[in-house]
Amino acid sequence: MIRMVDVISKKRDRNELTKEEIEFIVRGTAEGTIPDYQLSAFLMAAYLNGLSHNETLILTQSMAYFGDVVDLSSFGKATVDKHSTGGVGDKTTLVVAPAAAACGAVVAKMSGRALGHTGGTLDKLESIPGFNCGLSNEEFIKQVMERKIAVISQTASLAPADKRLYALRDVTATVNSLPLIAASIMSKKLAAGAKNIVLDVKCGVGAFMESRESALELAELMVRFGNGAGRNTAAFITDMNEPLGYAIGNSLEVEEAVRVLLGEKTPRFYELCVSLSGAMVSLAMNIPFDEACLLTARAIENKP
Amino acid sequence: MIRMVDVISKKRDRNELTKEEIEFIVRGTAEGTIPDYQLSAFLMAAYLNGLSHNETLILTQSMAYFGDVVDLSSFGKATVDKHSTGGVGDKTTLVVAPAAAACGAVVAKMSGRALGHTGGTLDKLESIPGFNCGLSNEEFIKQVMERKIAVISQTASLAPADKRLYALRDVTATVNSLPLIAASIMSKKLAAGAKNIVLDVKCGVGAFMESRESALELAELMVRFGNGAGRNTAAFITDMNEPLGYAIGNSLEVEEAVRVLLGEKTPRFYELCVSLSGAMVSLAMNIPFDEACLLTARAIENKP
Repeated sequence: MIRMVDVISKKRDRNELTKEEIEFIVRGTAEGTIPDYQLSAFLMAAYLNGLSHNETLILTQSMAYFGDVVDLSSFGKATVDKHSTGGVGDKTTLVVAPAAAACGAVVAKMSGRALGHTGGTLDKLESIPGFNCGLSNEEFIKQVMERKIAVISQTASLAPADKRLYALRDVTATVNSLPLIAASIMSKKLAAGAKNIVLDVKCGVGAFMESRESALELAELMVRFGNGAGRNTAAFITDMNEPLGYAIGNSLEVEEAVRVLLGEKTPRFYELCVSLSGAMVSLAMNIPFDEACLLTARAIENKP
Repeated sequence: MIRMVDVISKKRDRNELTKEEIEFIVRGTAEGTIPDYQLSAFLMAAYLNGLSHNETLILTQSMAYFGDVVDLSSFGKATVDKHSTGGVGDKTTLVVAPAAAACGAVVAKMSGRALGHTGGTLDKLESIPGFNCGLSNEEFIKQVMERKIAVISQTASLAPADKRLYALRDVTATVNSLPLIAASIMSKKLAAGAKNIVLDVKCGVGAFMESRESALELAELMVRFGNGAGRNTAAFITDMNEPLGYAIGNSLEVEEAVRVLLGEKTPRFYELCVSLSGAMVSLAMNIPFDEACLLTARAIENKP
């Protein structure tokens, strides 16, 4: 029988955890049989002693597949998700999701809330009166079916272990760990079901990863996990030394995104939107990146 | 305002905590305003990154004086306490407490329960039908007044922060940390009020400190803290590569202790009892150690 206190001491002493031990943690986290205080001791040990790539991969897959997994297979190979590691003024989803959908990609995306100093797409969307992000998995798939685009909040049954660990990390100073970030993001992306995944890894003073090296390491790890799980995954390292665009604040950012969709080419923000949605279309439609960017640029600039 | 998450990240990043930050932790631990999950993340960070001698000293004093402190001042300079870091078959208290009291020392001792594989004096005493270790501070002082000897369980109001941290360490694999052990033991000893303290630091495969070096470091730290707080403190490093005496198990150990008090010279155990009680009498009565050992040897061998 595996005991959590033994798993903690193993990681505390820098030993590699087995698949069984990591799955024990994920199950106990999801089912609530491991108490918070043991999880947070484990998180700090993992933060300080690290997790190997193999441990991180097992943690990612275990968190992804323990809980509901969204089945988007009926949409074929064109489903695409996008994720940003978070920054200030980052409202790209509001532009790239409709742009990619306009070019034929099926955008099925689950977004998150604000974390620390970084904004959350859900909070921005909900600044629109009456906007409802709380769709069930069935409603989500129905909307993707009808509109080829949906941005909703992660449902409680999706990657439940990550949900609990994420909340604990926020209050135990263990957010900023490369393997824990990679496992958290990719477990959610794998469970959310899209065949193609575009990652926007921010780097700079306004990002969780300050250095280019750590951003690159995180990006490489996540791309490897995504591809390893049969999803076409691409990543950008983008600058977060200054806010993205001019607007900061939920409703202001929605307005800025709308202005860009109406033709305004806000420096840095506009270019990033073209590239990100270009990558989404490139993967989803299987066309070269440059060509895809021409399509998404036209889609963004086209007034409705 | 100090936030616990910032204190955790400071220790996580190997920075030295201030007096205010350590006192914030101790107060929040005692009053319950800091949740378990933040304390255990802190404990793991402290376990892995260590605490400086200065941090450990502040933690010790802060835990000792936040809560009740037993006032034994009416007994003058002769009050003495003894503590063992724990081992197998260690029933010395049952012999050295009466031996030291018989030689004029005032033995006012608070004992603990079993921890991990090590036995607890309270559990041993309570194997005697009807034995009551749960005295209040007032009853404790009354008994010391009348009998010059009392061994009771630590009251809930004594070093309450240590009580909570101790329980958390047991389930988060953070027991075996030298500074955390030193702070835990010495905070209780300081709060328990005796003017003189004798420490028995076990070393070997059956002890928490396996190596002689770590046992010595722990002993030196605790002696320094004790003397720095105005208590005469002495420490022994003693062998725990094999059990002490022949008996293991609560009631069996009580019987072995009684046999030694009736004149049986159980190898290793008898000698250790003479030395420990000799040190207790030496400090409490201010007489040379060798002389004190002759007194305690005679007291132990004397049949009632």
